[in-house]
Formats: sequence, C-alpha cells, structure tokens
Amino acid sequence: MKNKIIALLTLLWLSVVCCFAQSNTIKDDFKPSTLNQPGQEFPQVNSQGYVKFKIFAPKADSVKVSLGLGGRGGTILSKAADGFWYGTTEGPMDEGFHYYHLTVDGGIFNDPGALNYYGSVRWESGIEIPAHDQDFYALKNVPHGKVERILFPSKSKNTSLPAFVYTPPGYSQNQSVRYPVLYLQHGWGEDETAWANQGKANLIMDNLIAEGKTKPFIIVMTYGMTNQVKWGKIRDFSIEPFQTTLLDELIPYVDTNFRTINKSSGRAMAGLSMGGMETRTISINKPDVFEYYGLFSGGVFAPEELKNKDKVKLVFMSSGSKEYPDRVKTAAAKLNEAGIKSVAYVSENTAHEFLTWRRSLREFAPLLFNN
Amino acid sequence: MKNKIIALLTLLWLSVVCCFAQSNTIKDDFKPSTLNQPGQEFPQVNSQGYVKFKIFAPKADSVKVSLGLGGRGGTILSKAADGFWYGTTEGPMDEGFHYYHLTVDGGIFNDPGALNYYGSVRWESGIEIPAHDQDFYALKNVPHGKVERILFPSKSKNTSLPAFVYTPPGYSQNQSVRYPVLYLQHGWGEDETAWANQGKANLIMDNLIAEGKTKPFIIVMTYGMTNQVKWGKIRDFSIEPFQTTLLDELIPYVDTNFRTINKSSGRAMAGLSMGGMETRTISINKPDVFEYYGLFSGGVFAPEELKNKDKVKLVFMSSGSKEYPDRVKTAAAKLNEAGIKSVAYVSENTAHEFLTWRRSLREFAPLLFNN
Repeated sequence: MKNKIIALLTLLWLSVVCCFAQSNTIKDDFKPSTLNQPGQEFPQVNSQGYVKFKIFAPKADSVKVSLGLGGRGGTILSKAADGFWYGTTEGPMDEGFHYYHLTVDGGIFNDPGALNYYGSVRWESGIEIPAHDQDFYALKNVPHGKVERILFPSKSKNTSLPAFVYTPPGYSQNQSVRYPVLYLQHGWGEDETAWANQGKANLIMDNLIAEGKTKPFIIVMTYGMTNQVKWGKIRDFSIEPFQTTLLDELIPYVDTNFRTINKSSGRAMAGLSMGGMETRTISINKPDVFEYYGLFSGGVFAPEELKNKDKVKLVFMSSGSKEYPDRVKTAAAKLNEAGIKSVAYVSENTAHEFLTWRRSLREFAPLLFNN
Repeated sequence: MKNKIIALLTLLWLSVVCCFAQSNTIKDDFKPSTLNQPGQEFPQVNSQGYVKFKIFAPKADSVKVSLGLGGRGGTILSKAADGFWYGTTEGPMDEGFHYYHLTVDGGIFNDPGALNYYGSVRWESGIEIPAHDQDFYALKNVPHGKVERILFPSKSKNTSLPAFVYTPPGYSQNQSVRYPVLYLQHGWGEDETAWANQGKANLIMDNLIAEGKTKPFIIVMTYGMTNQVKWGKIRDFSIEPFQTTLLDELIPYVDTNFRTINKSSGRAMAGLSMGGMETRTISINKPDVFEYYGLFSGGVFAPEELKNKDKVKLVFMSSGSKEYPDRVKTAAAKLNEAGIKSVAYVSENTAHEFLTWRRSLREFAPLLFNN
C-alpha cells in the first residue's frame, strides 16, 4: 500500500514537473517565416508563436529587433563567434502579421531575411505567425481573381494616381454581368498596397467565393492620403483632398472602366483604423454615395451621425479582443435599436493588427450587397 | 603692349583654371532620388549623376555603399557629429536605374531612404539617375493601360503561380478586339516584378501607344525560375521546368482569360540577360510557339539555330555600348544575310543595366506584330 502511494505521488510529481517544464519550454520546431525573402532561412517561427532571429553584422556593437512582447521594447540579440547575432522573442507573438525592424548600432534597418510591407510611412520587415484559422486566407487550388494596378487621372492632384482593383474569378468571362464594388481603405502609415499584400484581401475573397459564402464583387484599394499628418496629430487630418479624389475622380473612373453597378446600392466603403475614420467621415459628409459601411478597428458610429439612415443597409464595426470589443458591441446595439442594421465583430486574441482586419473582411464580405 | 600681353595671359590662365575647376566641381544641385520612399530626402542625385548618401547609424564603426564607380568598390561614408554618415560617389553614375545596398559594420542592409527592387535574389535598394531621354518612360498625362497580377494554376509545380499582365489602354472598352502578346522575361536574380517596377514597361508602352508608335499589345511577365542556379553556375540551369510552365500552363491560361490572338503570329518572346538566354533556348526547343524574338543584353542567335527560319518574323538583339555592341551588330548582319529579318540596337553610354533594357523595349515594341 505504502509503495502504491509512493508510486502515485511520484507519478503526480513527475506530471507536475513535466507540465511545468513543458509550459516553460520553447519548442524546437522553428520554421522559416512564410514572408521570408526567397531562400532565406531566418527569421523563423515555432508552433507556439516564438520568433527566432539571425542577423549578420560581424562588426556591430548592438543589434535589436522591434518585435517582442508588446511594451517590453523588443528583442535584444547576442553576437556569436560566426559574426551573426541571434535571439528569440521573450514570449509568443499574437497570431497573424506583424511589422518590425532592426536597430543596428543605433540605425534603423530592415531584416535582410524578410519581405517588406508598407507601414509606419516606410517599407518595413514583415513576419507571419501562423494562425489556427489561417486556412481562410491561404493560397488554395480554387479559381483566382485578379489584382490590377490602375493609374487613374486626378485633376485635383494634377497627376495619375495608383489604385489596386480586385476583380473576382469569372469577371473577364462573364461579359454581361455587372458587379458591386467595395472601396477598401488602409490605415495610417500604410498605402494602397496594404490590403492585397499584408491583408490578403484577394485570397480571402477567392476562398469565400469558392465556398459560396459571398457574392462576387470588385474591391478597389487606393491611397487615403492618411500620411500627410503625423501619428499623434491625426485629429488635424483634413478629409477633403482624399474625398475629392475618391468621389469625383476614382469612382467615376472605376464606373467607366469596370463593369460596376453604378449606384449607391452597389457600393460599400470600409477601412481599417484611420481608413475606418475616413469611411465614417465621408459617410457623414456625403451620405448618398455608399449604402454599406465597415469600420475595422476604426471607431464606431452613433445613430445620429447617419444622416441618411433609411438608405443605410449595413453598418459593420469590428475590433480585436485586445482593443475595445465592448465599445463596438454597444455601438451596434444602439444602431440596431435605432432601426439601422448593424453587426459587431470581435476578433479573438488579436490587437490592432492585420489578423483582426483579415477576419473582419471575412465576416463583412458575406453581409454585403444582399438587399 | 606688354600690359596687353599680361592681360591676355592672365585671361588665358583664368579661363584654364576656371575650366579645370569646373570639370572637377560637383554641382550643388542635388535632389532626392525619384525612387526614394515617401518623404525621404536621401539619397540625392545631382544633374551630373553624382549621388549623395545620408545614413543614420550613430554607434556604427563603418558604413559603405555598394554604389560608386564600377570596380572601385563603392562609396565609403564618413560619420558626422549628428550621428549620420555622409558621402558622395567618387564620380557620376551611368544614367538610369541601379541596384545598391549598404554595408553597416560588416552586415548588408538596404538604405532606409530608398525603395526596394528585386535583384540579386533579394530586395535591394534602387536609385534612378535622371537620363537625358527619360521622357519615354515618364508617367505622363496619356491614357494608361493596367498591370494585373494574376495567379495561374500550375500542375507541374502543384500550386498557383503569379504573373503580371499589362493590358493596353482601351482593352476593357474594345470588347471585340483581340490583341497579340509579348512574353517578357527578367534577368538572373530578378523575378516577375522587375519589368513593371524597375523596367517601367507599362509606362513605355502607354507612351509609345499615345504617340502612335506601336500597335497596342498585351505583355505577360512571369518568374523565369532563373534563381535556381547560382550566378557563376548559369550553364547548369535547366530550362525544362520553366519551359513547361510557360508553354503548357501560362500561355493557355492567358489565351483563355485575355482576348489574345492565339497563334504563333500573335506571340513574341523577349528577355533581358538570362531572360534572353531563356528566349533563345525555348525558340530552339519549341520553334512553333513564337514568331518574334528579342534578346536584350542576352546573347545572340546564329542563323543555323533558328530551326523554323521561314516562320521567324524578327530577331532583335541589343546591348549597352559598354557591353558587346559589335557582337550584336555582327550577329544581326549574319541573320539578315541568311534571310532572317534581324535588328541590332545599341544603347549609348550604358552597361548591363535597366536603361539599356528600357530603351531596348522602346525600340523592339514598334517592330512587333506588323506582318
């Protein structure tokens, strides 16, 4: 009996130790990030979301990475005899996409191993922590739409401006079909490349369409001129230059050059972060252009702000669970009480980052153009 | 008289000194490179083609730039009290586009001021030295075609592969018109982004079409799998994987999804550097697919290599004047003697670099699809 008790206690002890050890162990299953430059082995990500860096700078005195645990100042790398600097984040990162950069002897540079993405008003290194639900934005063997880069004439800016246009699979074959359009804006520090590059908007749409979960529609992504103010001064941002370009120049160009449904019931506008602020401001200034609105981590609407509320078919507001989930839920409830159809969405275990916005697009798209 | 002679001699001496000083003076008319990231003041280029750099790395011991006079090892920067490193190239650079990178304390990084372009199997910093003839690839107030990013299914690679497709202005309006197609390849170390980004192929075409100098046609740019061998081992490159993807997968996809002239008289193939080598090899392996060929700094054809010579409508071969201009001229003469229409083009004052290839496209396009 005593032996049995000892055996049991030993087993219990072992399992406690084992669990404890496991919870503190960084698993050795690191793989190159899917956003590395071709052939680059580092940075690497493990199944828990830790990131391992390897940077060549044999004569440097200090190399840091801005990626790490939020607020704790990133990851300090250590120099090895081979001239490389090595280091691993102190903890796991949130699932999804993150921007980062290196600080090498006080200067800010990108990681030569990683691809670059436009954020923070510069091209920064990007990394992808595989998400448990990454299948919805994966490149799959389904029919693919196209992403076109257009140059549209802008009288107000006296030049041609770029935009990206997603046309769904079948667009070029179905010559008699007209499609509704979502105008989809990036956030502060980003530009017209964000939604197709780090947002994977085209793959999200291809997959939703293949599963029959959304109507096919066109997405137009242009530069929101959001970077003409500094981050802390966003209240000083003037919407007019962008509003003129969007409403008076881009929309007429798109309606002429693509087979669109050229009326407000065939138009939606959405944006992430400051792009949500733009969506909200334009909906207030010009209530007759769009009938569907999406604010992804981009604030909320109050019922009295919607001047044209009988015409508004949907207000979608989202937030990462680490942002302000209760605020979007409360705001949606108030809109619904006021007779305006509204949906709140909360992305679990994410903050103000692209996985929140990829998921927001996945949730928003099926709700569009159904009326 | 003596005074007159002294005055004359003084004048002569002054003008010699003046000329000498002028020829050694770097003009102080530096402007930010047109390829800088938004809002970045450096690198800067002056009207003579000198480049000035400014890099922040306050605790670094050495900062070098790979750009400088060919073969002399680039430009070594000097540290100032403000924590920035400054320096100017020893001499003027060739007009046009150049790749470069920094070496900071022994590590290779990109210039945070410049945009990145894919070359040397990595995203590198790019700079543009304004060319005297830059008007032909400038963004002008003319109708613009579109550059679309497609994902085409590849059975042989078991995935979807990207390509960029330029469709000329009017393509989406003129629904009954079918267009010929140029398949246009990048060089070693580059990928499918090269021709539209650093090559400015779309702007070159928009401008040629606006001036009535070329027929409108489609351009397809895909990855030539050229980076599966190292630079020194290019002789070991196997064409088959790319040839299969191009001929059996991409061309059928393009012919299904775009309004093409789906026969050899409606197809051209060209490439720069290793892309020229691919063009040449595929023309030898599969002589029935294309009728127009372009080798831009990409070697030459011998008459006996063209198996299907009665069908070949044009062989275009080009070279920078600093490469092998005589070789392309001699090769073209031999082809013409053998009854194969051939054109040689030499780009003045350029080497193995993108201005040579932008000009080659400008010269090649008007010769296509006229028979």
